[in-house]
This record gives sequence, structure tokens and C-alpha cells, in this order.
Amino acid sequence: MKVKVQADILGANDRIARENSQLFAAKGVYVINIMSSPGAGKTTLLEKTIAALKDRYAIGVIEGDVATTADAERIEKAGVPVVQINTGSACHLDGSMIRGALEEFDLDSLDLLIVENVGNLVCPAEFNLGERHKVMLLSVAEGDDKPLKYPLMFRESTALVINKTDLIPYTNFDMDKATKDSLSINPALNIMPVSCRSGEGLDAWYGWLESGLAAR
Amino acid sequence: MKVKVQADILGANDRIARENSQLFAAKGVYVINIMSSPGAGKTTLLEKTIAALKDRYAIGVIEGDVATTADAERIEKAGVPVVQINTGSACHLDGSMIRGALEEFDLDSLDLLIVENVGNLVCPAEFNLGERHKVMLLSVAEGDDKPLKYPLMFRESTALVINKTDLIPYTNFDMDKATKDSLSINPALNIMPVSCRSGEGLDAWYGWLESGLAAR
Repeated sequence: MKVKVQADILGANDRIARENSQLFAAKGVYVINIMSSPGAGKTTLLEKTIAALKDRYAIGVIEGDVATTADAERIEKAGVPVVQINTGSACHLDGSMIRGALEEFDLDSLDLLIVENVGNLVCPAEFNLGERHKVMLLSVAEGDDKPLKYPLMFRESTALVINKTDLIPYTNFDMDKATKDSLSINPALNIMPVSCRSGEGLDAWYGWLESGLAAR
Repeated sequence: MKVKVQADILGANDRIARENSQLFAAKGVYVINIMSSPGAGKTTLLEKTIAALKDRYAIGVIEGDVATTADAERIEKAGVPVVQINTGSACHLDGSMIRGALEEFDLDSLDLLIVENVGNLVCPAEFNLGERHKVMLLSVAEGDDKPLKYPLMFRESTALVINKTDLIPYTNFDMDKATKDSLSINPALNIMPVSCRSGEGLDAWYGWLESGLAAR
């Protein structure tokens, strides 16, 4: 990508993201943008989160994928409204894609809108969507060297969920190193180790979400 | 990304990639471009491959990362010449980055040049580097739904190495589904399940590389 082209795209995106953000504030919708590598467990985290919170909050989901509606089908089964965005060749969601998808939701009645970005540890971090918080998910199977190797996403995120802790015994993942390196990039990062498989740690994640929802 | 901009960039890249490819052919260098999500195990596969083949072939490595020289340092310890490309914000390597890095190698004496692309399952698949083969690495921890969700990389690759098979008992990864879906996208794909940890399956991978080297 040439730098100038990239800068123009980012500037135009920021304007649309700001409009989205104003709309969310006016409607009282709390929006998080979940980002990770492919296969870190975003959709599974969403399924767990919806099951835990949907009786108390009206939840909507936007699914971003290069191809297929597989993730949206999983979320639909979880019982909340979902819109699938297929980006084709684009490696991330952007503000205007979100704006287009919003027409499908009744924003007046929505409490929480969760956006699942395209699985990619690089590009999504550069594009604001108008969300309140960027949340990143790292699987222990990816390795503890990821914070230093992909610093932008760690810097842009408010919360880091470290998933698949049940696999730690079978890997060389060092939680202390991952935590230390993440905080060296972003000292304000809220780090929550979880296992979506066993359920361990998920209460901290729900608590983080609920404290944000309460303060919205 | 706007389509027109993208098309111009891809066209310019293809010209440079073609020049790289002609240079590699003239010098008798066999070049593979390894792509995967972050943390699928590209660098570990390289370390194993170098240890297995470096006595019989002159090997060079180009490491692509958004940030850090961590991977190049690992390859240097493995005892072969290595050039690190830090892409900054770019989510993939391109032909001109490779051309710039080639100045650091003695191409006349090189048999095998392995390029480790930026960890990303979307963008690298769109950019030819002048390589003979694109090889993709999928970790079982990423899930068996990845072929259908990220089809371009599976379509563009000649070989698919499925890594971390030692973790299969602790995941719900279905090798039959992953294989079937991959072949539905690319019937010519050469699929090799391996565990870099236990060593299982690596001989098939070395054999695939050596048959390509012999026929170059």
C-alpha cells in the first residue's frame, strides 16, 4: 500500500467512524469490536457471552468474514439478531461497512452490539468502526511472542482476552511473558485469561463487559 | 481498499514478481513463500527444515514481520543467512520488498530460498513475490473451518502443511473435514499433516521440498 493512499482511506474512515460513534451514544448502545488471528476463538467467546448475558441485555452481533456465513449461523442459533458482512478480499471491517449493517438493527432497543472483525492480527487495528472499545483475543496456541510482533493491536485495545488456557500444559506459552510484554506496549490493558472450553476466567470477562454497560 | 487502487498495486507488484521469478530461474534458486496465521508455527517449521536439509543444500531465509527481529534471530541461530524485512504497518510482503532483500544474498551459490511471510491469512495470498510455490501452514488449534472461511490462500497454495497435530486430542479439529474442504477449494493441493513438536509427518514435508529442488 502506498502511504498516501492509505492515509486518505484512514481519514475518510475516521469521519464515518465518528458518525457511527455519535449515533451509538445517542441511542445508548454499547459497542465493542473484537479482533484476533483466525481461530483464536472469537465466535465461541461470543456464543458464551450471549448465553450468559442475553436475559439481562438486548444484544446484537455483526459478523465480519472474508467469506461464508458460518459464524452468523452459529450466532443465530445463540438467539440474538446478527448481520453477516462478507468483505470479499478486504482484510478488515471499516466504518462504512458497519454503518450499512446498522440498518438491520433496532438501535433504540439495543444495549450491546458486538462486532466480530475479520480474523487478522494486523489490518483491523488500523480501522476505527465507531466502537467504544477494541478488544483483542489471543489464543495461547499462537505463542507468547505475539505482543511484541504485532504491537499495534495490543496498543489500540482496551482489553486483552487470552483464550484456550486449557491448552497451556501442551504448549510452551509463558503467561508471565505475554502479560509483561503486553503491558510494556499498553500499560492500561485489561488482561483476562480465559478458557472458553472449560469456562475458567469467563466471569471476569462478563464482569468487565457489565461494568462498561452499567457506565454507558 | 478501493478496488481500482488495489488493482493498480497488484498489477505493479506482478511485474516485479515476474522479474524476481526470472532472476531465480536464471540463478537456479528454488523459492517458496510460506504463509499462515500468526503463531501457526512458520518459524519453527523453518528451524526444523534448515536442520534437516542444510548439509545438502545452501539455504537462505527472508523473514517478514510487522515488527521485531525475533524470527531472524532464531533463523540465524539455525546457521543460515537471513534477512529480516520489517513491514511497519503493511500486512504482507510484496515483490519489491523481496527484490530489495535479494542484494544481501549470493544467489549464485544458493539452492533454496525460503520466504516467511507476515502472519496473516488474508493479505499475503494476493501478492506474488516471484516464488515457485506458495505454501500455507494451518495449525489445528485454529480450527477446521478455516479453508472455507479464508479460501484465497488455500486456492493460491501448492502445499498445505497442517501443523500441531499433537494438539488434536485437546481440540475438536476434524482432519477429514479440513482435508475435504481444502480439496474442494483446490483439488491439486498437497496436504501434509505434521507436528513440529514431535517430528511426526516432517519427512513427507522434507520429501516434498527435495522433489521440487531436484526438478528445478
